[in-house]
Amino acid sequence: MSALFSEIENCVTAPQGFRAGTAACGIKSSETVKDLSIVVSDVPCVAVGVFTTSTTRAAPVLLCQERLKNGRAQAVIVNSGNANCATGELGLLNANRMTELAAMRLGLESQMVLCSSTGIIGRQLPMDKIEHGIKAMKLGREQGNAFSEAILTTDTHPKRMALQFEIDGHMVRLGGVTKGAGMIYPNMATMLCYLTTDAALEFEWIQAELRAATEDTFNMLSVDGDMSTNDTCILLANGLVGNTPISASHPEAADFRHALRHIMTYLAREMARDGEGASKLMTVYVRGARDKTDAIKAARAITASPLWQCSLAGADPNWGRIVSALGASGCELHQDRYEIFISDVQVAKHGMAVEYDDARAHAAMASDEVTISIDLHIGTGQATAWGCDLTHDYIDENTLYTC
Amino acid sequence: MSALFSEIENCVTAPQGFRAGTAACGIKSSETVKDLSIVVSDVPCVAVGVFTTSTTRAAPVLLCQERLKNGRAQAVIVNSGNANCATGELGLLNANRMTELAAMRLGLESQMVLCSSTGIIGRQLPMDKIEHGIKAMKLGREQGNAFSEAILTTDTHPKRMALQFEIDGHMVRLGGVTKGAGMIYPNMATMLCYLTTDAALEFEWIQAELRAATEDTFNMLSVDGDMSTNDTCILLANGLVGNTPISASHPEAADFRHALRHIMTYLAREMARDGEGASKLMTVYVRGARDKTDAIKAARAITASPLWQCSLAGADPNWGRIVSALGASGCELHQDRYEIFISDVQVAKHGMAVEYDDARAHAAMASDEVTISIDLHIGTGQATAWGCDLTHDYIDENTLYTC
Repeated sequence: MSALFSEIENCVTAPQGFRAGTAACGIKSSETVKDLSIVVSDVPCVAVGVFTTSTTRAAPVLLCQERLKNGRAQAVIVNSGNANCATGELGLLNANRMTELAAMRLGLESQMVLCSSTGIIGRQLPMDKIEHGIKAMKLGREQGNAFSEAILTTDTHPKRMALQFEIDGHMVRLGGVTKGAGMIYPNMATMLCYLTTDAALEFEWIQAELRAATEDTFNMLSVDGDMSTNDTCILLANGLVGNTPISASHPEAADFRHALRHIMTYLAREMARDGEGASKLMTVYVRGARDKTDAIKAARAITASPLWQCSLAGADPNWGRIVSALGASGCELHQDRYEIFISDVQVAKHGMAVEYDDARAHAAMASDEVTISIDLHIGTGQATAWGCDLTHDYIDENTLYTC
Repeated sequence: MSALFSEIENCVTAPQGFRAGTAACGIKSSETVKDLSIVVSDVPCVAVGVFTTSTTRAAPVLLCQERLKNGRAQAVIVNSGNANCATGELGLLNANRMTELAAMRLGLESQMVLCSSTGIIGRQLPMDKIEHGIKAMKLGREQGNAFSEAILTTDTHPKRMALQFEIDGHMVRLGGVTKGAGMIYPNMATMLCYLTTDAALEFEWIQAELRAATEDTFNMLSVDGDMSTNDTCILLANGLVGNTPISASHPEAADFRHALRHIMTYLAREMARDGEGASKLMTVYVRGARDKTDAIKAARAITASPLWQCSLAGADPNWGRIVSALGASGCELHQDRYEIFISDVQVAKHGMAVEYDDARAHAAMASDEVTISIDLHIGTGQATAWGCDLTHDYIDENTLYTC
């Protein structure tokens, strides 16, 4: 933890003026599992989002993209258990209706409410259940953690963080939550992320910052190479602390950026660690690439290789599969230059095997966290990607998902 | 089987003037498993090849690419158990030495001998074992099937076919074999393919034909999305039947093309069916795409989706994962147009669910062969891709490969 900021409780309701609520309304098969949630600000927010680039984007994604054109929102309603994707005109009407129902409950205009859905694709939302859930929902300042739990699907644990730090001499809070465990590959993952802050932010600045931070965090994450139809990352800034709105020229813009990236990096790593069936976290660090684009290609090719993911599961330092993934990645590479390390064990130099202690290499692979470091010795491009291993549990979770 | 040609025995030694031989020389851990093989023509051949586009191409691939520039060769020596990849200068010297040893045994110039290696990456070839194996090897006309077995790695069965058909009133034979079960994704797969014929072929024509046929067959195959360092497809034509060399202007060029694509399609499908851990063959047919490039993107995205591969393993008609893969594929798509069929059960129309009989959809998914048909209703582009399901056995085969 940097001295710049300190960690606090309650994630998305840590910033002043934010409340949350949850309900178990029966969208998921169990009647007791929470599957509906709202986070709302007391006052209108500067609001920005980054979304999946899929051409089969779900209805709620289309709705958010339209509403965020003016950069303002005040609440988000989220359901799990149903993705509201491949649902046609009725799906769009239902997404719209979901925001109307939430707006009535919250006393807002429906244009100020965003919505997200995650779960099974190709089924219409059960609107009666959602209506009942919204009516029954109680909102409170202490409900941030409950919100982080209600958005989960196959995740084994919630992912959340909040930080406080000073801007203009005011104490500012920034909170974030994510869900996402499978169908995880950039642009973006089957992931939802909500960030809230009581800092005042300038719209164009935070829009660019959120996009850039997404590129370096969530878009560097792979569980299975599958990109989702519903990926969403939304940030709401209500400005209640009264600071000068942060823009590129603000003297403390870098402090906010630092906190934002700290939370998003933490959440990305936690999603990789909690990938479906994952038993370990893999971090791939590439340097010496021709440029950043090449470094990203190389790092992500390794996290997305099922063969290497299997080696990781078996703690087998079969680094030839890294060579194969590198070769297929499309990055510039010289066969007599690259170096590969598995944690602190060097396995390849000048593009070929070096003598190494097999026991040490196996031990490095057997750790809960394995770092692969690669130096391509071409240029100065670097990138970090996160992923996990591929296990029987991934397959078990995904063979009978809709049954 | 088309009436144009008929199936015959002995695969690569079916064409006249070809012999093969195999040996168990101990490159693989077992001393009794065959891991070295040669196929040779009695006379020099027109020779063409298609190879992996990986930037970490193995030494034997680099050797073949160099030697095939003049379009002539007479023999190929192949080892399994070691890929001779990431082996630096010594790897190149060893590949060259392997062809010298084979050339001495066969009484040829080493420039007329090609070589391939498949297996573990990052280890030097055991040249003493290879030398002993070559000396011990017996060559014969009836050894085609033995050759098809000695090139295997994790395959569960050999893949081979030979056809005979008439050209210029002569009976011509064309035989082929492949290996490849994991690290299978185009440009090309961890696959080796050898084709032999006693027809006379014009070099430029067969070079273009082999490349085009590879695009439509092996490059439409996915087992796990991983591209290999060693992929090789070589064709040797010795011309012993004495036909007018086939070129684009030959009246029966289409007949040869038809036979070539018949064998290569069969071998591609068999590789998908025998994918590591696979229990079923998936064929994805896309039509109505903007163009062929888009159809290929769409078809291959579906075969390469681990989530959909898991649904296939569980016989779960969770077609939302097809929607997700389509959306991420980069093909042009209109959300209100596309149709999806699982074998003969339509599950989506106008981009959304249609009513279907769940029992029939499950039954279709439970078959040994599942065909996914998609009409994008945009243009006339079409493509077919092949893949398989993702099972525990894939993971079991790949967790401890080098241990």
